[in-house]
Amino acid sequence: PAADAAGLAAALEDNRRAVDEACTLGAPCLVLVVGSLPGALQGQPAYHDIARARREVREGIATTLEYARQVGMPLAIEPLHPMQAAERACINTLEQALDLCDTLDPARSGALGVAVDLYHVWWDPKLAQQITRAGRERLLAYHVCDWLTPTRDLLNDRGMMGDGVIELRQIRGWMEDAGYAGYAEVEIFSDHWWAQPGEVVLDTCIARHRGVV
Amino acid sequence: PAADAAGLAAALEDNRRAVDEACTLGAPCLVLVVGSLPGALQGQPAYHDIARARREVREGIATTLEYARQVGMPLAIEPLHPMQAAERACINTLEQALDLCDTLDPARSGALGVAVDLYHVWWDPKLAQQITRAGRERLLAYHVCDWLTPTRDLLNDRGMMGDGVIELRQIRGWMEDAGYAGYAEVEIFSDHWWAQPGEVVLDTCIARHRGVV
Repeated sequence: PAADAAGLAAALEDNRRAVDEACTLGAPCLVLVVGSLPGALQGQPAYHDIARARREVREGIATTLEYARQVGMPLAIEPLHPMQAAERACINTLEQALDLCDTLDPARSGALGVAVDLYHVWWDPKLAQQITRAGRERLLAYHVCDWLTPTRDLLNDRGMMGDGVIELRQIRGWMEDAGYAGYAEVEIFSDHWWAQPGEVVLDTCIARHRGVV
Repeated sequence: PAADAAGLAAALEDNRRAVDEACTLGAPCLVLVVGSLPGALQGQPAYHDIARARREVREGIATTLEYARQVGMPLAIEPLHPMQAAERACINTLEQALDLCDTLDPARSGALGVAVDLYHVWWDPKLAQQITRAGRERLLAYHVCDWLTPTRDLLNDRGMMGDGVIELRQIRGWMEDAGYAGYAEVEIFSDHWWAQPGEVVLDTCIARHRGVV
């Protein structure tokens, strides 16, 4: 979303460049973290109408999808946790993301799908149902970490797999039953883990991946 | 939810006492903040299965509802924000709460409904739709405050109405269109506002209520 026409044009151009970069890198898909109220991340929202932000996101993805289809780069919409709805992304449930996919790619062509990051969606009572709905054509990426109790920060207090309450094995089962056969990517925004030596973090990730993911 | 049978019995007895207290006070309804993983609030969850917690909540509300019907005290399920799903409540969307109402009170008798606290539900892309679905029989309470950008704490950084991004007037319109005619209750868990003199807080609440709610 953008506060004005110039901002919108810049955002669309930025999206196009990101598609090109994903092609250059040979990425399997480009993950879209779609933003929300313009300026909110800087503490000064230009407007408060989240429905407007959602309409702009729909239009922006539609435009970007046209170009991404031409160059063969799938787009994966990542729903973010509702606690990040004001600043970081106004798509906040898997159902909402899949509704958008159905609107913009009703043929389930593989050009548009979702990135399932468990940190954002683990709490959702419709999670299993929506993973099944998504199916193989729409499940483009899968991110794992864990939800700590307590969680002390809205952004950088994610947990290492196994240290929190997310039922990792069960949800992986739902993903695989729905046809997902890609990687489970570890993504742990965490002041705690960022302060540890890199090899400790990697060794722990590998061990937990084998043990609990 | 409870870790064992004794805990469950104690929780049900506690609910029954709360219904009695609400009757004594002449309250219009008893708001249910339903809990989630037992022990999680103390940092030691007894189990991680949120689907189990949700089943137990359904059974607990069914049992409590039998008694509440006898004494004529309506129960209002309050969905809490998904960021509080592990520790405080495993009912996290208005849709989920209303599904439960339909299961336990299909006749829409007025004995079971929801408390709509904007802090918990403002982000929901299905909010307008679900308020309409709820209708007058299910809309038993309405709590207002605001969502700050940034939000610095998961519990006690709520904003005064008008200081955040929630579209208070629009949502009040949805509530009234659905038939809600009760109070808009101010509920601001906030370290900032708790540190202000009481009369300043009250004067601000009244002014904002008139100006932006």
